Amino acid sequence: MKISHIEHLGIAVESIEKALPYYENVLGLKCYNIETVEDQKVKTAFLKVGDTKIELLEPTSPESTIAKFIEKRGEGIHHLAFAIEDGVAHALAEAEEKGIRLIDKAPRLGAEGLHIAFLHPKSTIGVLTELCEK
Amino acid sequence: MKISHIEHLGIAVESIEKALPYYENVLGLKCYNIETVEDQKVKTAFLKVGDTKIELLEPTSPESTIAKFIEKRGEGIHHLAFAIEDGVAHALAEAEEKGIRLIDKAPRLGAEGLHIAFLHPKSTIGVLTELCEK
Repeated sequence: MKISHIEHLGIAVESIEKALPYYENVLGLKCYNIETVEDQKVKTAFLKVGDTKIELLEPTSPESTIAKFIEKRGEGIHHLAFAIEDGVAHALAEAEEKGIRLIDKAPRLGAEGLHIAFLHPKSTIGVLTELCEK
Repeated sequence: MKISHIEHLGIAVESIEKALPYYENVLGLKCYNIETVEDQKVKTAFLKVGDTKIELLEPTSPESTIAKFIEKRGEGIHHLAFAIEDGVAHALAEAEEKGIRLIDKAPRLGAEGLHIAFLHPKSTIGVLTELCEK
């Protein structure tokens, strides 16, 4: 697969409202978009930093995987997302052929209209990894 | 503080030798440097991705903070490092003034000859955060 850059870094937070003052007032980054991804049961806030984004993830339900992550491990970095140049479907097929366990067998629609798919952290040395394309 | 981009993402691994085939053969990234930081008791491997680097961190001693991290939480993302444009010392002073708890009161020398300092994850919503400058 061809990775151009880190598309975003997903960070689990209990409350976007409580987290944003740190990101904006201390780090000096700027939140340019907040949206809710219903099927993931999360509210997301995006901040741009270089060619990458920070995506704050707040659970909108106790059944959200983000709520479960926070319950188990506390707030913190949840996943790493790469921008794929040669297509997520192609990258998934290649990864599976190389023995990587897939969470998503095919790309699906994520926040900001991206086509996304996740690789399983058991295959990626502990890092929940997302592949993205526009 | 002025952040230009994510300088690197530190990922704790048990073995760089075992982790590199995933990063190089599956993700297609390239390791361009391996070095040992004696006072941190870690071996580090660097891979470039866009304007950011992935820094794999392997403990060289059971007393390493990376060894303790892996023991407690397993392999995975350990810290997030921002490139600071207006100086780490200045950024530290500003962060402290804004109520952020510092791990390093002054910049010290890190891998690749960078001046670095860490902010405490209790103040940064669960993300161990490093500030870097060349």
